[in-house]
Amino acid sequence: MLPVCQFLHLSHDAAAGILRVTLNRPEARNALTVEMLAELIALFEHVKTRADLRVVLLRGNGGHFCAGADLKGVFGDAQKPVVAGEKDPVITMNRAFGEMLRVAEAIPQVLISVLEGGVLGGGFGLACVSDIALAHQATKFGMPETSRGLPPAQIAPFVVERIGLTQARRLCLTSAQFNGDAALRYGLVHEVFADEAALNTLLADTLNQVLRCGPAANARTKEILLSVGQLDPDAVLDNAAAHFAACVRSPEAPEGIGAFLQKRAPTWAHTFTADDVAQAQAAVLASIAQEMAQ
Amino acid sequence: MLPVCQFLHLSHDAAAGILRVTLNRPEARNALTVEMLAELIALFEHVKTRADLRVVLLRGNGGHFCAGADLKGVFGDAQKPVVAGEKDPVITMNRAFGEMLRVAEAIPQVLISVLEGGVLGGGFGLACVSDIALAHQATKFGMPETSRGLPPAQIAPFVVERIGLTQARRLCLTSAQFNGDAALRYGLVHEVFADEAALNTLLADTLNQVLRCGPAANARTKEILLSVGQLDPDAVLDNAAAHFAACVRSPEAPEGIGAFLQKRAPTWAHTFTADDVAQAQAAVLASIAQEMAQ
Amino acid sequence: MLPVCQFLHLSHDAAAGILRVTLNRPEARNALTVEMLAELIALFEHVKTRADLRVVLLRGNGGHFCAGADLKGVFGDAQKPVVAGEKDPVITMNRAFGEMLRVAEAIPQVLISVLEGGVLGGGFGLACVSDIALAHQATKFGMPETSRGLPPAQIAPFVVERIGLTQARRLCLTSAQFNGDAALRYGLVHEVFADEAALNTLLADTLNQVLRCGPAANARTKEILLSVGQLDPDAVLDNAAAHFAACVRSPEAPEGIGAFLQKRAPTWAHTFTADDVAQAQAAVLASIAQEMAQ
Repeated sequence: MLPVCQFLHLSHDAAAGILRVTLNRPEARNALTVEMLAELIALFEHVKTRADLRVVLLRGNGGHFCAGADLKGVFGDAQKPVVAGEKDPVITMNRAFGEMLRVAEAIPQVLISVLEGGVLGGGFGLACVSDIALAHQATKFGMPETSRGLPPAQIAPFVVERIGLTQARRLCLTSAQFNGDAALRYGLVHEVFADEAALNTLLADTLNQVLRCGPAANARTKEILLSVGQLDPDAVLDNAAAHFAACVRSPEAPEGIGAFLQKRAPTWAHTFTADDVAQAQAAVLASIAQEMAQ
Repeated sequence: MLPVCQFLHLSHDAAAGILRVTLNRPEARNALTVEMLAELIALFEHVKTRADLRVVLLRGNGGHFCAGADLKGVFGDAQKPVVAGEKDPVITMNRAFGEMLRVAEAIPQVLISVLEGGVLGGGFGLACVSDIALAHQATKFGMPETSRGLPPAQIAPFVVERIGLTQARRLCLTSAQFNGDAALRYGLVHEVFADEAALNTLLADTLNQVLRCGPAANARTKEILLSVGQLDPDAVLDNAAAHFAACVRSPEAPEGIGAFLQKRAPTWAHTFTADDVAQAQAAVLASIAQEMAQ
Repeated sequence: MLPVCQFLHLSHDAAAGILRVTLNRPEARNALTVEMLAELIALFEHVKTRADLRVVLLRGNGGHFCAGADLKGVFGDAQKPVVAGEKDPVITMNRAFGEMLRVAEAIPQVLISVLEGGVLGGGFGLACVSDIALAHQATKFGMPETSRGLPPAQIAPFVVERIGLTQARRLCLTSAQFNGDAALRYGLVHEVFADEAALNTLLADTLNQVLRCGPAANARTKEILLSVGQLDPDAVLDNAAAHFAACVRSPEAPEGIGAFLQKRAPTWAHTFTADDVAQAQAAVLASIAQEMAQ
């Protein structure tokens, strides 16, 4: 059972194995509160255990992806004094952002993010851990933290992993804001789109590509990819060979190779049109509107 | 003595120190069999010991570089049951691909790959360990494994090293196929060419650039480059200083610096024209045809 | 007190916290001697302790950034024989380049380099450790070492860190020379300029961006960025959270957040025009001319 969330809207397409997650605090451009962080961590922890889920599709409600940390909520902790012998509550609060991103990056599903409006601070971090990032050309990306006298502490390490130290240091140390086209050039996102119609086409193509891949093959591939640099190179390859053999010995490889030889789609493939994607998004928005009306 | 190979054609230019290696199973788009893997490992192990060789030039016969693993041959092992207490033969077979790529990446020679036609799976891996990769614009790059229910287990780690995690994860998890222009954009290859005439010019320029570099200086430089991230940063620099001193104390540095001050080419330089390159390739094909006629 | 230097001209803008450092051996295209190396190391070691300094702006006098190691001076050591039981003086000399780059990369200030003319060898290394690199389009970048029978021993590791192994191996093993536009494409520099007027505008914009960031926030951010890959990912995030809390508990964060909420510039911001930048550079050149006249 999916966890019950107050600030995340969840929509489950059981047939295709897609979970649509909508950050849902549009009045604050989906800025992350301590409560939302806890919900995201719980959600990703749950998702990790769900072999039936193949894709997590992450988007913000109201035209913004996520404007970063909610300053009001988050800085409540800054008012609390440090109690001698106890951990500074500011450290605990800040570290939770990194914890959330660590859990998000490790889910076995393919994490697709749809980026538009503000993608700042913690939202920028979420973009950095997505497997496939699609951005509106006019998206406002940035880490404004340094201009406010704060380091983008839990975000910067994921930016270095995402686009390398050379670009990361310049962006962090200038508090630069940049758009989707620049994000594509930096290698932060994979594709840009100009409007919702273009996004629907792009998203249908992307989902069809991901869903023609074997579910377990993809999950194991992601684990292999994330192990590079964390283990000795030979250990990475040893583990990878074990993953390969596990797929060969499962029903997935025979079906995949059989489908290839017979020139047919494997049983796990799905095909979405741009209209299907548009309707799924409309259903998400209708469901959110209904919940708010209650 | 170069090893005797059945599926690799070897052509040695002793004057320039170039070994042309042609993957030679054109009827199967040079797909890698267990035998070819063994030949490649033996070849690279031998090449490693040959200080007279400066360049290994790798190409496929018949318009394709390498279409990946030979499914028929390789999946013979999948029929074999796992014997209790013994290693799964599928693991052993799969791991050999990674072993081959590890040996290939570590040769002290400059590895130049000419990529065209299919560059898939294991062929994609070979592209990822080459020092200089030249690709036809219409090359078909890809890791189709996931769409067949298998992880690109021994390839994916080399892709991460080659183009970074951000692009690698998207390519692996979508089973994407892309051309030479996209490969240039991803940073997978260094140059693209439109036809054989353009390739001949590009290859002549590339060989001339490589061959104006000191043989031992290049071999030591490659060792330094590959040590980054494997050793502590200060240890990398300590080793590098020892390599530098070894060159200074050898005849190579005095000749190189002398040539520079006297505005002449060093004794180790070679100059090829596009015609020379075309003729060398024609000779390779003639030799292959002759062998097949026997 | 700033160290006294013979081959570096220092100009201190105390109001903005900018130190302009000019490599000043124009008769040799600012090629690095053993003495200049020692001065650079001493300077960066000093700068490290100066919390009042926020930016180090590095440029060469006379139209060249830095043509690499001074062959004459540096190869004096190659004449010295190795004394049994003692360290080869060539190793010691060479290692000093890497030591200088290690110290330069670790300064808490934002290191901005203005690149033009020759940016070779050790000069190339300095470009690789700068936080923001601005290059004239016609700059001559390269590591000519290998063509002279030497490895770019202390430079190559920083090139790998800067632009990745894939591009680094090709540039090192071909002794390639390339211009500013190519450097931008490789991700070596952040921006290119066509002439001094364009540089002045670019530099004013860059300084204004850097100087709107909190001084301590930027210094701590740089420390976080440089820790990625050096520490376990969770340790990176733990340290980063401590840095974040330290900023929250300092006067910097309240001022930065207050300024943001009040839509005003924080007290630490500075605004330069292109004219200001041009005048500062003119003052540097006048001061150098005056010193030479004495």
